Amino acid sequence: MKRAAIIGAAGYTGGELLRLLLDHPHVRVEAVTSRSLAGQPVHRSHPNLRGRSELLFTTPDQVTNCDVLFLCMPHGEAAKQIDRWSGVSPLIVDLSADFRLRDAAAYRTWYESEHPAAGRLAGAIYGLPELSREKIRESRGARLISGVGCNATAMNLALLPLARAGLIERVICDIKVGSSEGGAEVTAGSHHPERSGAVRMYAPAGHRHTAEVLQELGPINLDVSITAIEMVRGVHCAAHVIPTRRVESKELWKLYRAAYANEPFVRLVAEKTGLHRLPDPKILAGSNYADVGFEIDPRSGRIIAMSAIDNLMKGAAGSAVQAMNLALDLPEALGLTFAGLHPI
Amino acid sequence: MKRAAIIGAAGYTGGELLRLLLDHPHVRVEAVTSRSLAGQPVHRSHPNLRGRSELLFTTPDQVTNCDVLFLCMPHGEAAKQIDRWSGVSPLIVDLSADFRLRDAAAYRTWYESEHPAAGRLAGAIYGLPELSREKIRESRGARLISGVGCNATAMNLALLPLARAGLIERVICDIKVGSSEGGAEVTAGSHHPERSGAVRMYAPAGHRHTAEVLQELGPINLDVSITAIEMVRGVHCAAHVIPTRRVESKELWKLYRAAYANEPFVRLVAEKTGLHRLPDPKILAGSNYADVGFEIDPRSGRIIAMSAIDNLMKGAAGSAVQAMNLALDLPEALGLTFAGLHPI
Amino acid sequence: MKRAAIIGAAGYTGGELLRLLLDHPHVRVEAVTSRSLAGQPVHRSHPNLRGRSELLFTTPDQVTNCDVLFLCMPHGEAAKQIDRWSGVSPLIVDLSADFRLRDAAAYRTWYESEHPAAGRLAGAIYGLPELSREKIRESRGARLISGVGCNATAMNLALLPLARAGLIERVICDIKVGSSEGGAEVTAGSHHPERSGAVRMYAPAGHRHTAEVLQELGPINLDVSITAIEMVRGVHCAAHVIPTRRVESKELWKLYRAAYANEPFVRLVAEKTGLHRLPDPKILAGSNYADVGFEIDPRSGRIIAMSAIDNLMKGAAGSAVQAMNLALDLPEALGLTFAGLHPI
Amino acid sequence: MKRAAIIGAAGYTGGELLRLLLDHPHVRVEAVTSRSLAGQPVHRSHPNLRGRSELLFTTPDQVTNCDVLFLCMPHGEAAKQIDRWSGVSPLIVDLSADFRLRDAAAYRTWYESEHPAAGRLAGAIYGLPELSREKIRESRGARLISGVGCNATAMNLALLPLARAGLIERVICDIKVGSSEGGAEVTAGSHHPERSGAVRMYAPAGHRHTAEVLQELGPINLDVSITAIEMVRGVHCAAHVIPTRRVESKELWKLYRAAYANEPFVRLVAEKTGLHRLPDPKILAGSNYADVGFEIDPRSGRIIAMSAIDNLMKGAAGSAVQAMNLALDLPEALGLTFAGLHPI
Repeated sequence: MKRAAIIGAAGYTGGELLRLLLDHPHVRVEAVTSRSLAGQPVHRSHPNLRGRSELLFTTPDQVTNCDVLFLCMPHGEAAKQIDRWSGVSPLIVDLSADFRLRDAAAYRTWYESEHPAAGRLAGAIYGLPELSREKIRESRGARLISGVGCNATAMNLALLPLARAGLIERVICDIKVGSSEGGAEVTAGSHHPERSGAVRMYAPAGHRHTAEVLQELGPINLDVSITAIEMVRGVHCAAHVIPTRRVESKELWKLYRAAYANEPFVRLVAEKTGLHRLPDPKILAGSNYADVGFEIDPRSGRIIAMSAIDNLMKGAAGSAVQAMNLALDLPEALGLTFAGLHPI
Repeated sequence: MKRAAIIGAAGYTGGELLRLLLDHPHVRVEAVTSRSLAGQPVHRSHPNLRGRSELLFTTPDQVTNCDVLFLCMPHGEAAKQIDRWSGVSPLIVDLSADFRLRDAAAYRTWYESEHPAAGRLAGAIYGLPELSREKIRESRGARLISGVGCNATAMNLALLPLARAGLIERVICDIKVGSSEGGAEVTAGSHHPERSGAVRMYAPAGHRHTAEVLQELGPINLDVSITAIEMVRGVHCAAHVIPTRRVESKELWKLYRAAYANEPFVRLVAEKTGLHRLPDPKILAGSNYADVGFEIDPRSGRIIAMSAIDNLMKGAAGSAVQAMNLALDLPEALGLTFAGLHPI
Repeated sequence: MKRAAIIGAAGYTGGELLRLLLDHPHVRVEAVTSRSLAGQPVHRSHPNLRGRSELLFTTPDQVTNCDVLFLCMPHGEAAKQIDRWSGVSPLIVDLSADFRLRDAAAYRTWYESEHPAAGRLAGAIYGLPELSREKIRESRGARLISGVGCNATAMNLALLPLARAGLIERVICDIKVGSSEGGAEVTAGSHHPERSGAVRMYAPAGHRHTAEVLQELGPINLDVSITAIEMVRGVHCAAHVIPTRRVESKELWKLYRAAYANEPFVRLVAEKTGLHRLPDPKILAGSNYADVGFEIDPRSGRIIAMSAIDNLMKGAAGSAVQAMNLALDLPEALGLTFAGLHPI
Repeated sequence: MKRAAIIGAAGYTGGELLRLLLDHPHVRVEAVTSRSLAGQPVHRSHPNLRGRSELLFTTPDQVTNCDVLFLCMPHGEAAKQIDRWSGVSPLIVDLSADFRLRDAAAYRTWYESEHPAAGRLAGAIYGLPELSREKIRESRGARLISGVGCNATAMNLALLPLARAGLIERVICDIKVGSSEGGAEVTAGSHHPERSGAVRMYAPAGHRHTAEVLQELGPINLDVSITAIEMVRGVHCAAHVIPTRRVESKELWKLYRAAYANEPFVRLVAEKTGLHRLPDPKILAGSNYADVGFEIDPRSGRIIAMSAIDNLMKGAAGSAVQAMNLALDLPEALGLTFAGLHPI
């Protein structure tokens, strides 16, 4: 059994990680920290875990050596504390945005501040197994794995086959997201009477996850808009691709199959008929699947590439556990096999 | 044109009042106050009013004489400031809970503190026209009209005919409510990921609106439970009545018709078939209707009396404007005739 | 008082029209038809109208002469029956798709069949006042006004100023819609457990409303995708515009103000901050407003033009009544001034 | 590995069973039948199972011998076909209502028809392990286990400790349910624009599940009302109990602990503070937990007993698998350990 700890475990990402790790056959959660809830049982903030664990939240300084450490702190904190935590665990998975970008200049551009630990950026691995499986597996020495941006993951998985094939002349990603993306902290915008039923384009342009896509897929011509809709969990990405040349459906099938046929958590969903013929995050709550599909507009040749994920799973905790499995040389899908629900 | 002002107009009740008064043919809104938004246009907090009014929020001390003054302050504030505002307007409608109970002892019991202006309680009129129409009309001298509790209104209207007929041996009101009941202030419980889809019985017992029902319907044997469900506007009351004697449907029809046949805003909804055969708050958003229905359990004789209202309308601003119309000798339904939407 | 009739009044568009006309100060509804509900009160299918009207549904053959006739029949029916109804009323507003396209060839392309009354197409007026106000006003002789496609309306209003200015190099409209767009007929896809919370891209390409935009805005380079989201009423259009040249925000403000400053039902919503800084259909339920906004992506120069409407109002019945007001020489906004609700 | 088959597997209960059994370590699903979808992959109607199984739906006559057979047919069908299926499998779990009542007269009263196989009623076991664990375990010979009514289960679990203690003078159960209770068949009432946001008391009295509670808890004085609210999965039961004598919280804690301390799937949720202090079905989607709580109204002594379940899990497929585990002498919780999600 591997010993795990979660720093900042009272939030949504921490709670999801804890849910996964408590049921993981090769992991024992040793500590979960929350300064504000120290001493309280974990079901205080994660009511689904009532009766599942005797764990109490502790303060961060009570965390001792372990085999894997998950950082779920506010953006900026992980970078400041990375040296400290590196001494506690040989494997760190940081679910904040701090170590997603390898380039300090890109960080400065998108996060509008100097990176507090720029020297660590180059050594961090972007923790999306579909993009970095071998790097994650091989990095058995000094290992800092970065979690992924949820919106970035939806874009990366929708576009990867097209980017590799050089088919993207220009792409506009129109992304719909649920309220859990904003985290567990209450804000004016998360007040139920305001947020319920909203179609709120909160980031018409400039969303930071854009930088992760540019890093991972290369310098494609990418525009991103993000709209909050009525949903708690879920990301739906519609990537409107103006292709470099006219393509047929057959070719796309080949590209997507080549990219994802062996992926345990990517499903191609691109049927001609049926209610569920294209990706929909509705059926992915709690699941680690990324459903990916596409369609070609016969009038214009535009490719509409689509993806759907659960932002807290494939877009955060699920990919983090998948990366941990790889890094610890465990079967990749361990603890991640929940199918998702229908109807829901 | 009557001159109106709203004190504390940035909240949901204030916004709803403002929406109604801006379209009221005999009222001109002179001032709307909000300390935090003073100087800002009203659509800052009420986006539906964009382009409908040039009004800016002011501070309370900028309010001058007017014909009717609506107080939409936090509970407790109106009682403290009542003398001040009585000097500004001959007619005051207070939408807080401060002047709903005529009895200072009852106030102490339910609100667990001494009333700050107990001497004014006896003179205040409970502003539900279905209960106090004549008092509101006749009180042309010194007039302090209290707004109504939304849950109390749902109960009062569901039960009034049965209470008058002495048919209530015991009644348990199971009430379902939307999130706007909690007002515009963000709380941990109103965070969308927590509140969305919740079925949260936040008041199994002890809800303060109980006191308003006991006052208005007399000392009936009443229990109340309130559950927050997925809904923004709306109250649904299921009053499970154990009757003093077995009754037939025909008798109930007579009682309810006698009570409500001439009421402009109470509709009897008690059909045998159809999707919309019983009251449902879904179709009442924005409307001042209270839909009231009933059914008899043939096994036990239990009467299920039901009502549905929009908590911000019949349960707050709508009844307040209706009361104002009566007090100012205007046609009772003026400015309140929006039918509600379907589907919605 | 003008005498009006609605053919096919049991559906959602018919019900919304009826709601508006019952409160219209210059119109008296003489007949509403529904073969399946003939003899029944209108609240049977429109529960919000309970207590608002004594009207019963009739069969179509009971409709006699009137001043304005609204056709709310399934697509294809109006075209077949247009000669018959032209004999009944000098003014016809057809809310189906039958007379939206002036060009029979375009109709054949998008609707994949021959138009049953192609000779009438050229004489029909596209009933969006923002595009055709003068034509609607002046066509006092033989008048057939077509209703508008709801998605087309959202696109037309978002893009009109840019199209007029020749600024559209290419545009991709990503549209989110509610379930009432599908009408009152139950389908497998409208089953609540399936439709609730869905993010279902049901038309990645090829939506027929595209043709209306191409007709009204000219031959722009337009792609359209439509996604059903959790919402009953509402359309949100995000028009991702690749401009012919780089523009500044100031220029866009000028263009949009020039286009809409005098429009009674178009509001510019494009603020820098605030929860409600951009268009959101959430606050438009029941309102005839189209909220329009825009933002420029500083990285790429892309213009994100946005609009939000209530599909049953500005996207159907509201625009139809507005057109009727114009055609009958009544004040344009008559019966359409409901502000919309907040919160909702 | 035990061989299982599901008859009528295209519906929601069948799909949920299939989801559970595909992940069950000791069961292999041999056949799933659906006349209308025969030959199609199971993900056609259960999109969450895409990539999880190669199974195709078959016709019922293709089902051969197996170790356990689940019947998910429309009510009435199982009773007609029970002899046939008894020849196919030694263990049958029928998820319809056909074999829930042991008394043919009670069946006639509540289902208003003669039972088609009344002779089998006495031998059927009511499949709620919390009520019938030993019977299920011991019945190793001829075994017909009945599934449970979801609303009945919510009531039975909320009330069991009070009924056993003879504390119920009278109880009124006010139950809120989601749309999946109605099954996968589309109806006028399940049309999303009508069902979304509805608070529809569709059974103020007379719900058939009442009979299951009277059978299992004994002849208590029970009234039941059921209201459909905005939710897909979930049942919330508020049991308003007028007790035979005044009780204190301490006594209730003892009774509930005595009843449920050793139950693997019943959790007591009755805290004094916190958002999640009482049962809420929101966090139970996909989980087999029944959360049970209570509170005492200090004014009247009324006990408010509460429960929350996922109707497709503890209220149907989850309890069925739990019963199967018991009947097959497998660990009771096998395949049922999903914790549920938060937030969701």
